[in-house]
Amino acid sequence: MHKIPVGVLGASGYAGRELLALLNQHPHFEIAFAAANSRRGESVDVGSGRTGRRLTFVGIDDAPLSSAALVFSALPHGASAPWVARSRTVGARVVDLSSDFRPGNAMPRLEPLLAAALDASAPYGLTEDTRPSLGGAGIVANPGCYPTAVLLGLRPLARRGLIDPDGTIVVNAASGASGAGNNPRPDLMFGEITENYRPYGIGNEHRHLAEMRATLAGWGARSDMVFTPHLLPVTRGILATMIVPLTEELPDPASLWHSDYAAESFVVVSGEAPSLRDVVHTNTARIAVRPVAHTRRPAVQVMAAIDNLVKGAAGQAVQNANVLFELDETSGLPS
Amino acid sequence: MHKIPVGVLGASGYAGRELLALLNQHPHFEIAFAAANSRRGESVDVGSGRTGRRLTFVGIDDAPLSSAALVFSALPHGASAPWVARSRTVGARVVDLSSDFRPGNAMPRLEPLLAAALDASAPYGLTEDTRPSLGGAGIVANPGCYPTAVLLGLRPLARRGLIDPDGTIVVNAASGASGAGNNPRPDLMFGEITENYRPYGIGNEHRHLAEMRATLAGWGARSDMVFTPHLLPVTRGILATMIVPLTEELPDPASLWHSDYAAESFVVVSGEAPSLRDVVHTNTARIAVRPVAHTRRPAVQVMAAIDNLVKGAAGQAVQNANVLFELDETSGLPS
Amino acid sequence: MHKIPVGVLGASGYAGRELLALLNQHPHFEIAFAAANSRRGESVDVGSGRTGRRLTFVGIDDAPLSSAALVFSALPHGASAPWVARSRTVGARVVDLSSDFRPGNAMPRLEPLLAAALDASAPYGLTEDTRPSLGGAGIVANPGCYPTAVLLGLRPLARRGLIDPDGTIVVNAASGASGAGNNPRPDLMFGEITENYRPYGIGNEHRHLAEMRATLAGWGARSDMVFTPHLLPVTRGILATMIVPLTEELPDPASLWHSDYAAESFVVVSGEAPSLRDVVHTNTARIAVRPVAHTRRPAVQVMAAIDNLVKGAAGQAVQNANVLFELDETSGLPS
Amino acid sequence: MHKIPVGVLGASGYAGRELLALLNQHPHFEIAFAAANSRRGESVDVGSGRTGRRLTFVGIDDAPLSSAALVFSALPHGASAPWVARSRTVGARVVDLSSDFRPGNAMPRLEPLLAAALDASAPYGLTEDTRPSLGGAGIVANPGCYPTAVLLGLRPLARRGLIDPDGTIVVNAASGASGAGNNPRPDLMFGEITENYRPYGIGNEHRHLAEMRATLAGWGARSDMVFTPHLLPVTRGILATMIVPLTEELPDPASLWHSDYAAESFVVVSGEAPSLRDVVHTNTARIAVRPVAHTRRPAVQVMAAIDNLVKGAAGQAVQNANVLFELDETSGLPS
Repeated sequence: MHKIPVGVLGASGYAGRELLALLNQHPHFEIAFAAANSRRGESVDVGSGRTGRRLTFVGIDDAPLSSAALVFSALPHGASAPWVARSRTVGARVVDLSSDFRPGNAMPRLEPLLAAALDASAPYGLTEDTRPSLGGAGIVANPGCYPTAVLLGLRPLARRGLIDPDGTIVVNAASGASGAGNNPRPDLMFGEITENYRPYGIGNEHRHLAEMRATLAGWGARSDMVFTPHLLPVTRGILATMIVPLTEELPDPASLWHSDYAAESFVVVSGEAPSLRDVVHTNTARIAVRPVAHTRRPAVQVMAAIDNLVKGAAGQAVQNANVLFELDETSGLPS
Repeated sequence: MHKIPVGVLGASGYAGRELLALLNQHPHFEIAFAAANSRRGESVDVGSGRTGRRLTFVGIDDAPLSSAALVFSALPHGASAPWVARSRTVGARVVDLSSDFRPGNAMPRLEPLLAAALDASAPYGLTEDTRPSLGGAGIVANPGCYPTAVLLGLRPLARRGLIDPDGTIVVNAASGASGAGNNPRPDLMFGEITENYRPYGIGNEHRHLAEMRATLAGWGARSDMVFTPHLLPVTRGILATMIVPLTEELPDPASLWHSDYAAESFVVVSGEAPSLRDVVHTNTARIAVRPVAHTRRPAVQVMAAIDNLVKGAAGQAVQNANVLFELDETSGLPS
Repeated sequence: MHKIPVGVLGASGYAGRELLALLNQHPHFEIAFAAANSRRGESVDVGSGRTGRRLTFVGIDDAPLSSAALVFSALPHGASAPWVARSRTVGARVVDLSSDFRPGNAMPRLEPLLAAALDASAPYGLTEDTRPSLGGAGIVANPGCYPTAVLLGLRPLARRGLIDPDGTIVVNAASGASGAGNNPRPDLMFGEITENYRPYGIGNEHRHLAEMRATLAGWGARSDMVFTPHLLPVTRGILATMIVPLTEELPDPASLWHSDYAAESFVVVSGEAPSLRDVVHTNTARIAVRPVAHTRRPAVQVMAAIDNLVKGAAGQAVQNANVLFELDETSGLPS
Repeated sequence: MHKIPVGVLGASGYAGRELLALLNQHPHFEIAFAAANSRRGESVDVGSGRTGRRLTFVGIDDAPLSSAALVFSALPHGASAPWVARSRTVGARVVDLSSDFRPGNAMPRLEPLLAAALDASAPYGLTEDTRPSLGGAGIVANPGCYPTAVLLGLRPLARRGLIDPDGTIVVNAASGASGAGNNPRPDLMFGEITENYRPYGIGNEHRHLAEMRATLAGWGARSDMVFTPHLLPVTRGILATMIVPLTEELPDPASLWHSDYAAESFVVVSGEAPSLRDVVHTNTARIAVRPVAHTRRPAVQVMAAIDNLVKGAAGQAVQNANVLFELDETSGLPS
């Protein structure tokens, strides 16, 4: 059987490299090109041993878009949309890892010809939620890393209208340093991160908030939400701890998550608190749920952990691509 | 001038060792004994260079309590109270680092003779809050590490009645591994902590919750509180991120903290998010305050960072001892 | 095709757990039992997702040795030999990960009946060197972690008689904390290892020295050797840096390694210095060779990196087992 | 008493910042200026609490050299010499932390006027060795970080002619990431260093080799030397492990180090292997010595640990400055 040719734009960042590694081992996709302006002409090893391969980056402008049936764009926010449009022009389907097409984000302005090439809509690729809408899509907006963890955690409550609209959802999350990308920056040097920990995007101003609020609103949940991300001295992983106000006391809250995710390959609901170690290098989200003791108002504590580069980026992108091409959804993905 | 002789019970744990290091450099205290059953007879270096000194641990039973004008007890919770009582019997004043005398905690049962030796009350040693009550105290209950960070952060609001009694204070905090002590445990080995991060005490069941709620109640704040601690892959430091519901919108919330802590030597209020790096190896609490954007209900984000072994334990104990003996409050303490 | 039943003695240590994970994904072996006295009756997850499995540890005494065609013993040094003998009594072949049968190590004394059950010899399982002798073996002595890295590095010179017998081979090596096992010890706690680095076994007294010297002597190399191991603040990996005195100047030293290892699946010879990152979680040894500049006497610098738990223990054990059973040598092993 | 005004050129790198912190607490020096082109006009906090101070960087060209009695130059190699010359022109004495004036290094070419301003010689500032020659010096060449650890370790043997001239001194050393400076580089990002370890400068080509060999030659030791540095996943610290061939068996080798360094404030000779933890944030070098067992030829193992930014850079620079100005050599330095 022929493999489906796929291309990667923005292939030299952390998400792009993770994509190359996953695609290299994928049973049904093969890498048609890997484009990255900053490393144009350089070669990298993808995978190792028998399945290893040496790839040479082309510049974005030189990417043979029409050779790919599917393009993954891991280009920066704002820079991605034009290339998504160009890919559509030549008939390729697109999984876009930038925020350009995500709910709550304003689409960048494109010149008219490019804008005309875009689909009327790009479904949001939170696979477990939007799977039915992906089948015929031309463009899938792959979720952000924090939103993936947070939304998978909140979905069973939100979809059931159980979140108190007059209360506040408080989300504290922490991410490994790879979440900030691999461009050298003084604050990302080893000496600045080891033995340190700090919040950022404070004052409820992180750019992922809009994506989460828009999705929750689509599910009917319009409670206030406060989101504080933190930077961890680890390479990979996101863990979100959410305190959610309820409309009523729930006798067995965890049963909702167990029920909603029972058929899912990449969501594990557990009675024990998740840890980053449980999820790194996998496409699995681990979720734990506990009633909150010692309060008068009903609330539940939801904890969700993912690998920010896999389920939070490249892994979910491949999962969405599997759905787009009607492959087994777990193809090529570690669990 | 003669130095004041002080003893340390439970001197071989992380807090005890930090106490020895601080006391060894203190201009007005000198170490009369260091007691630790598990290392009885062993010697350790305290400090280095010219100020360094070699100490030999005695067993707790052999500690010459009467040789000390002041005893620091860093014994475990439950085991501390009897030794506090014995120290009082021989006339020593005590700073107790265990939870035995803290608000919200039940005093361990003592045999009648020991119980009779205890003072009617042991003021809580959150120095910046309770300084006036410490002067003549026989026993000071030194605060827990998490409560120190959280309560210093919440105090300006709580004391003014500005926390919405119908809302929920949500506290997420993270601590370095030294917070779990230095007894070997499988889950504290290097390989279990590095590149990992996880919540614990989930379901709002951490034993520090009672101490925080009782203190807040004493300040008139009876809102619900949800507290989730996490374990960080760092050695030292605690950072607490608090989302606090307000009774009213505050035009310039940070001004309250600036005003309340202006005269304090060990509290720094800053516009920038604190990080562990800013505070480790110091007795300083760094606090930042931000209004929460994008919500309908008024709320404020308060972040507080301390070194769990210094301001969260040994440093604050020395600070309290300085107050007890009417010394300069900053004597022997790093800022 | 039926899978070959294999058992693991000492399955709860780091090497034992790594063995379980590798065996669980092996195409031709299946786990018949996992024995570990300290965790008798406890269950663990091995692998995850579709290939995941839940195993319950039995006590060593209860291990059904006769149900296994092959037994891996990851028991401690000294404790392993009797169980190797018992396994031989019931006809199982054995890969022994302890030092009990390794060159340069004294065999523990066994009671006569057990001693009688042992094979006349147990070939050393440095697979790339001793492959031809393994085929019919009843017992294979799996090499130590440091010896694997060091001996693979030195072999091309030693086998050719190119190491100056009047010179000294100086080996400096560093290992991650998993090399010390997973029994809780004060010096292996997170706070003792992070941001630290130190030599151990100093004075040329590490117990692996005898294994390396005996093997080198078997190759005809009897030069002095000084070996200094160090403890790194990482979880996994060993990197050895060796300065080797030569009998003559070599025009292109790296060509010897390229030639000797050209057909090997698990040795990569490279012009660039290896790093731990290149090898962790793989069964690959990466070796780099450089002539030493700025000296009068000819010498070469050899650097070898492996994952101490894979190529240095469980991976090489599976590699040897593959040879024993005439399977593809790479079966079930990550490269 | 008036403090001596000192300036720092290149004040924004790791060594420069460490210098500012030390000088800010120095009892006899005060900072006259801090110059750093890359951060011209920016302000930084130096120290904290009562002794804390806010400094504004000036550009190098704007540094008021004549306001300082002493200039520390932490400028890059090659860029430093002209500014050392300019400082001499206005009468300031200089401690130069670059390699420009160190033994074994070629002086950069200067224009004639500047060259004329230089002193005939700049003594090497390995304080414990060259103290007598520093008193009247105009320029002191502060040693490199690796050379400081290695040379302090080898000096007792080298000065006595005990190193076998026909043998090879093998030095393996490892440094924390701050040794590579604080300019953002892809290979110094957190994700590239954590859980990793690798040699660099391989083939005996590290630029510090010349400095060490020239100094050893000055002591009469002309043995071959092979030096391999490694990069550790820690922030600070250097540990060097040296195997030294001897001209004769030494009955009690450690006694030489004890004897040579008995009067030194910043060298501790110990029977136990040093660790980075023992020395970071101090100006102390810890040295341990062991006879090498199991070899035919006499050799000794010497291990030396320092903080690369303190004793290996800024601390030793202040130590040298103390000698230059006939102050107590330990003034302002942590031990």
